[in-house]
Amino acid sequence: MSSSENSEALVLSSDPLHPANLIPELCRSFYHLGWVTGTGGGICIRAGDKVYIAPSGVQKERIEPTHIFVLPYPQVAPSPHTDRVFLRRPSLNLKESACTPLFWNSFEIRDAGSCIHTHSQHAVMATLLWTGPVFTISHQMIKGVRVGGTGPALSYLDTLELPIIENTPNEEDLKDSMAEAMIKYPNAAGVLVRRHGVYVWGTDWEKAKTQTECLDYLFEIGVKMKLAGLSTTLN
Amino acid sequence: MSSSENSEALVLSSDPLHPANLIPELCRSFYHLGWVTGTGGGICIRAGDKVYIAPSGVQKERIEPTHIFVLPYPQVAPSPHTDRVFLRRPSLNLKESACTPLFWNSFEIRDAGSCIHTHSQHAVMATLLWTGPVFTISHQMIKGVRVGGTGPALSYLDTLELPIIENTPNEEDLKDSMAEAMIKYPNAAGVLVRRHGVYVWGTDWEKAKTQTECLDYLFEIGVKMKLAGLSTTLN
Amino acid sequence: MSSSENSEALVLSSDPLHPANLIPELCRSFYHLGWVTGTGGGICIRAGDKVYIAPSGVQKERIEPTHIFVLPYPQVAPSPHTDRVFLRRPSLNLKESACTPLFWNSFEIRDAGSCIHTHSQHAVMATLLWTGPVFTISHQMIKGVRVGGTGPALSYLDTLELPIIENTPNEEDLKDSMAEAMIKYPNAAGVLVRRHGVYVWGTDWEKAKTQTECLDYLFEIGVKMKLAGLSTTLN
Amino acid sequence: MSSSENSEALVLSSDPLHPANLIPELCRSFYHLGWVTGTGGGICIRAGDKVYIAPSGVQKERIEPTHIFVLPYPQVAPSPHTDRVFLRRPSLNLKESACTPLFWNSFEIRDAGSCIHTHSQHAVMATLLWTGPVFTISHQMIKGVRVGGTGPALSYLDTLELPIIENTPNEEDLKDSMAEAMIKYPNAAGVLVRRHGVYVWGTDWEKAKTQTECLDYLFEIGVKMKLAGLSTTLN
Repeated sequence: MSSSENSEALVLSSDPLHPANLIPELCRSFYHLGWVTGTGGGICIRAGDKVYIAPSGVQKERIEPTHIFVLPYPQVAPSPHTDRVFLRRPSLNLKESACTPLFWNSFEIRDAGSCIHTHSQHAVMATLLWTGPVFTISHQMIKGVRVGGTGPALSYLDTLELPIIENTPNEEDLKDSMAEAMIKYPNAAGVLVRRHGVYVWGTDWEKAKTQTECLDYLFEIGVKMKLAGLSTTLN
Repeated sequence: MSSSENSEALVLSSDPLHPANLIPELCRSFYHLGWVTGTGGGICIRAGDKVYIAPSGVQKERIEPTHIFVLPYPQVAPSPHTDRVFLRRPSLNLKESACTPLFWNSFEIRDAGSCIHTHSQHAVMATLLWTGPVFTISHQMIKGVRVGGTGPALSYLDTLELPIIENTPNEEDLKDSMAEAMIKYPNAAGVLVRRHGVYVWGTDWEKAKTQTECLDYLFEIGVKMKLAGLSTTLN
Repeated sequence: MSSSENSEALVLSSDPLHPANLIPELCRSFYHLGWVTGTGGGICIRAGDKVYIAPSGVQKERIEPTHIFVLPYPQVAPSPHTDRVFLRRPSLNLKESACTPLFWNSFEIRDAGSCIHTHSQHAVMATLLWTGPVFTISHQMIKGVRVGGTGPALSYLDTLELPIIENTPNEEDLKDSMAEAMIKYPNAAGVLVRRHGVYVWGTDWEKAKTQTECLDYLFEIGVKMKLAGLSTTLN
Repeated sequence: MSSSENSEALVLSSDPLHPANLIPELCRSFYHLGWVTGTGGGICIRAGDKVYIAPSGVQKERIEPTHIFVLPYPQVAPSPHTDRVFLRRPSLNLKESACTPLFWNSFEIRDAGSCIHTHSQHAVMATLLWTGPVFTISHQMIKGVRVGGTGPALSYLDTLELPIIENTPNEEDLKDSMAEAMIKYPNAAGVLVRRHGVYVWGTDWEKAKTQTECLDYLFEIGVKMKLAGLSTTLN
């Protein structure tokens, strides 16, 4: 890595909407929603030429602004095999989120400003009950979701389709299959990972968050419908 | 619209029971109940000749008093095809709730002082398991619900009936079918919208809220009973 | 009634454990547990010769100390047909909880110091799946429950039995059948009311509350077991 | 016991991460997760030569630092038949957690720094649906769990196995069967107790807590899968 400087200024702000304040607050909220229990999951925010990322393997309801990593954007996709450039690394013994290359997919392929990863049980159950490569639902409140995550809102008359990719032991190894799925399903606002969770993005953190809520709602109601023997799409 | 004036005075008050303070607080509470996740749903309050309405398409747990719209009442039903009159519009780039014409139904047809719209999964599941035009339940704690929403309390011996209307892509287009259902079922304290949610009203915000809680409770227990093979009405 | 005096001193205290402070706090907590949504349910506390009771038909998460009724104890069971004596009635337009005669049962028959009433869906579902006069479960964590509610703790090897009485349109009319059930089942720590909820008592508010939690836990796991086809008692 | 001294200094600290501050905070959090309702369950923390333990049979969301017991470590396993040595006992009429000998198992057999006991319904349902001596799941997010609770992280490709021991009327009598199960299953990060709950440990409280969350998540999803007719292991 080219820099190990440790600028507190990049993460200390009295503005509650500063990314380094938002990420801890949102992670606490996601913890209480059951999205990120047990150190899994998280959120990243890209603001202009800076990307703010939470540490890996920590209690998500106890993150502090000083735990946040800051990376410059753009940079060559920070895959496992690439040296990542940092503007700031916490002085503690922390590692940046293992989702970093997957978050990068959302920036590079969809020009997203924020990406959320959850281990929500509704998402995981959806990947178990939809055994094929796509989760599909229609005639539900899907209009909170945008085409491709960053485009116009879906209509009640549209059918929502989300690709499901297969899990890998290392989170970072999902990078290529996630990118493929995003390209194959350009209208999808997120990518499900079988037996693992979901990645959802938006133009900013508000839209990433509200779309994650909408999608989680749809996974939940879809699973309930399937288990009740109801079809989740109308012909 | 006849007015774009921006009077802060209409929404800034140190009284926690002022509608512009209550709406943000109640929306936060509804968010944690799972009624308004992902920007859907909300509440409006009519106080005398003023109607307070939340903005559309925003995170319901983060509304501020300054985001509230104020409209004069009465005025010709503010349907999609009518210019609406405002006493106050937020200076931000916000639009008033798409539920506005539906809230107006509750004022004009039932003389309600408050109307709540939720996307609760219990309501949605009820509209999927009750495939006809009416949700029915009896011999449960229905006595928290009032006849027509603004009349005397129901008795344990009454049967609760709530009409279910079909959803439309645009929320505003539900206005006529909701009004029809309210007239056809004058005793109903709310109207369910298939695959979407429910509208519930009361003479004031407390009664609208407690009735929404009662009805949501009845949807939840009704769905549980149906899924367990139990009948939700006794003969 | 013999007294309509309105002594604030009876309910204003800086001690967080004063009954008039505890009841609002506990009702808020019960609201978030789903025990008292929509104005139903509540708790009363008897401290020496005074009984503290919440008002009827109000939002249980918004009770204030000044809303609390204080009654002298003992007095002839305050049934619907008996004039009740008060030490304090709130100046607002409030009525004491309709559960008052039922709370009195717990004082008179079990010498309880506190009684809790919930509309928990776990309790209601238990009364629907146990169609006879008794809810029974064994070999679960029942040792948090006391014999008769105020006696020694049950053992893991005991079988928990709770009578189920039939509901009536007016809460107060449950007084006699609840008393009968308490006498017929002297070891029961509570009484279930079919399609309605449960009454649980203890020697003080802490024990009433922890026993209500234990019983609600047992209703919940019992319902889950029944729905999964498992027997809730071992032979 | 060799000491009944009552040193406040052992439990009063302005450091929020002091064990006597952490235990009350974590118990409150566990209460809201449904892990320790009705006085059951809890957490202990071992810091160097001191063990901090919560009292038995109290409301877990209302513990105060002054309620905490402090014991020296090591000492002969404080079984029911052994006099326990204390550095501090609260002056109130409290008894140390009945889990004490079971917590000791985690220190002595796994060198754990913290041990958590929950009555989570997901854990209990798992012990009812897995009727044999082991709970097994694979191909889920098990990588938050460590080999033996204090070793390296499991991989997504591993199968998680947790022994299930049979319950006894007195918590302390589980000591020997828990120790046996820990020795027979050296890779297990916890021990389930049939119809009762689970014990989970880690090198420190953070790891004990995140592993308990991971395991609870796995019990929950495993139970859902079983009830949906899905296999929880892939061949």
